[in-house]
Amino acid sequence: MLGLDPDPRGLWPGYEEQVGDASSPAEAAASAFVWHCKALIDAAGPACVAVKPQLARFELLGAAGWAALEAVIAHAAGSGLLVIADGKRGDIDVSAQAYAGALLGGADSPFGRLDGLRADLATVNPLMGSDAIEPFIGAAREAGGGVLVLVRTSNPGAADFEDLPLADSGAMWERIAMLVDGLGAARVGESGLSDVGAVVGATEPRHLERARELMGSAPFLLPGVGVQGGRVEDLAPAFAPGRAGGLVSASRSIAGAYQAAGGEPAVAARAEAERLRKTAWELSGRVR
Amino acid sequence: MLGLDPDPRGLWPGYEEQVGDASSPAEAAASAFVWHCKALIDAAGPACVAVKPQLARFELLGAAGWAALEAVIAHAAGSGLLVIADGKRGDIDVSAQAYAGALLGGADSPFGRLDGLRADLATVNPLMGSDAIEPFIGAAREAGGGVLVLVRTSNPGAADFEDLPLADSGAMWERIAMLVDGLGAARVGESGLSDVGAVVGATEPRHLERARELMGSAPFLLPGVGVQGGRVEDLAPAFAPGRAGGLVSASRSIAGAYQAAGGEPAVAARAEAERLRKTAWELSGRVR
Repeated sequence: MLGLDPDPRGLWPGYEEQVGDASSPAEAAASAFVWHCKALIDAAGPACVAVKPQLARFELLGAAGWAALEAVIAHAAGSGLLVIADGKRGDIDVSAQAYAGALLGGADSPFGRLDGLRADLATVNPLMGSDAIEPFIGAAREAGGGVLVLVRTSNPGAADFEDLPLADSGAMWERIAMLVDGLGAARVGESGLSDVGAVVGATEPRHLERARELMGSAPFLLPGVGVQGGRVEDLAPAFAPGRAGGLVSASRSIAGAYQAAGGEPAVAARAEAERLRKTAWELSGRVR
Repeated sequence: MLGLDPDPRGLWPGYEEQVGDASSPAEAAASAFVWHCKALIDAAGPACVAVKPQLARFELLGAAGWAALEAVIAHAAGSGLLVIADGKRGDIDVSAQAYAGALLGGADSPFGRLDGLRADLATVNPLMGSDAIEPFIGAAREAGGGVLVLVRTSNPGAADFEDLPLADSGAMWERIAMLVDGLGAARVGESGLSDVGAVVGATEPRHLERARELMGSAPFLLPGVGVQGGRVEDLAPAFAPGRAGGLVSASRSIAGAYQAAGGEPAVAARAEAERLRKTAWELSGRVR
């Protein structure tokens, strides 16, 4: 799965020619973002099932960035890829509904239909509790998509709260996992997978086995492979319910492959994406 | 403090005339949002110290919504009001930096300076740990603003995770409060307040006293007054460090005051904002 994290300082060579007569730095960067992301999708997309745009990167460009995000998502969807809007939103009530509409399902209004990004899946932050997650699930089910709830993330700060032992038993993140399992239980499809998935960092393989015990039917999004130190080879438990049980996410290791390997960015990105795909595919086959 | 939560179905009468020749439903709604929010700021702003746009509402309109948000923030700042970007973002590393730039400080880039929203404060979700909060604090300090960390929210789902008792002692939210206190300790100003604040729901007054014990110098953002059932009269502990210790947030009770009181929306909004201001001011004076 291809992460789209365009960095104004790390775009593929050639972006300068895309800027044209942009009216502001944000407009110029947005044109370059669209060019960079489309090239990356064209190069690495055939080895991937999904793209995951990181909303923060686009948001930094304001309205121009949001328009770029819409263009990049349209290109990915047109290339037959699933789109995961990685915004980690978390709010309640009408605000949660607005986020869900913005990212997944759109919304009716007196002005006409508001389309939203129409992503297939969105990442959601569960801190505020089930009322922060359920509006996303509702919107995802209407649109035929799903949600991916942060359960145990791949960063050092996960130790601050996610890993805290509870008085009852287990850690905070395990309680989140139980909620995710419960929310998805009613909708486990023939594939054995539900539409309520979990983000489980690939940097701590020992958590993966426990996460799979707690969430037998949740698809796992596995960030942290590559630059953050996670290895595809360690992800076997994620694939227990089937090959679609784990979505391995890589961003900088694909987009930046040419810096280590040399040559054309697109060629190096394709080769690295193929290598990751092959490793994950072989691994998931062995697990089955 | 005036919440800006524009709802396409709940705009002040007259919005239809603002739509003009908009090219899409989102553009039409965005024009109406700007008109509604500016009118609300002009009416209720003089009784407030800050506005708090809810980012989800604007995000529902995509790029047009983000442009509307920029226009509304410029109007509020031009009216001398502080701006609190209520996005509850939470991510790590370069993504956290991008969010911080987008909402607070902007960023340098090869394309020129990216301005961002230049809000004075932003709400932040701490689930992922200190590395999700620190980039916001860094950006806020550079820009002379601050952050408001979700500590104990005002929704029923807060019971799911925030209230869980820890093996060590106290509840999850109390541990978040301790981190907030620690992050702000180095920068307590002459006012007795730090630049790392906390969102503490106004619906559960019993939590406020404990929150103030744990975070002696944090400014508190107090949502949940009005429609959600919180009463200004119960908020005394928030004001212990001084009149600026508590920011009472009200949205629908101000924007929708005319529906109960009758008459012009602007007149009713101003009267309700004045009533809340006076109550909070008297209360905070008594506490001192």
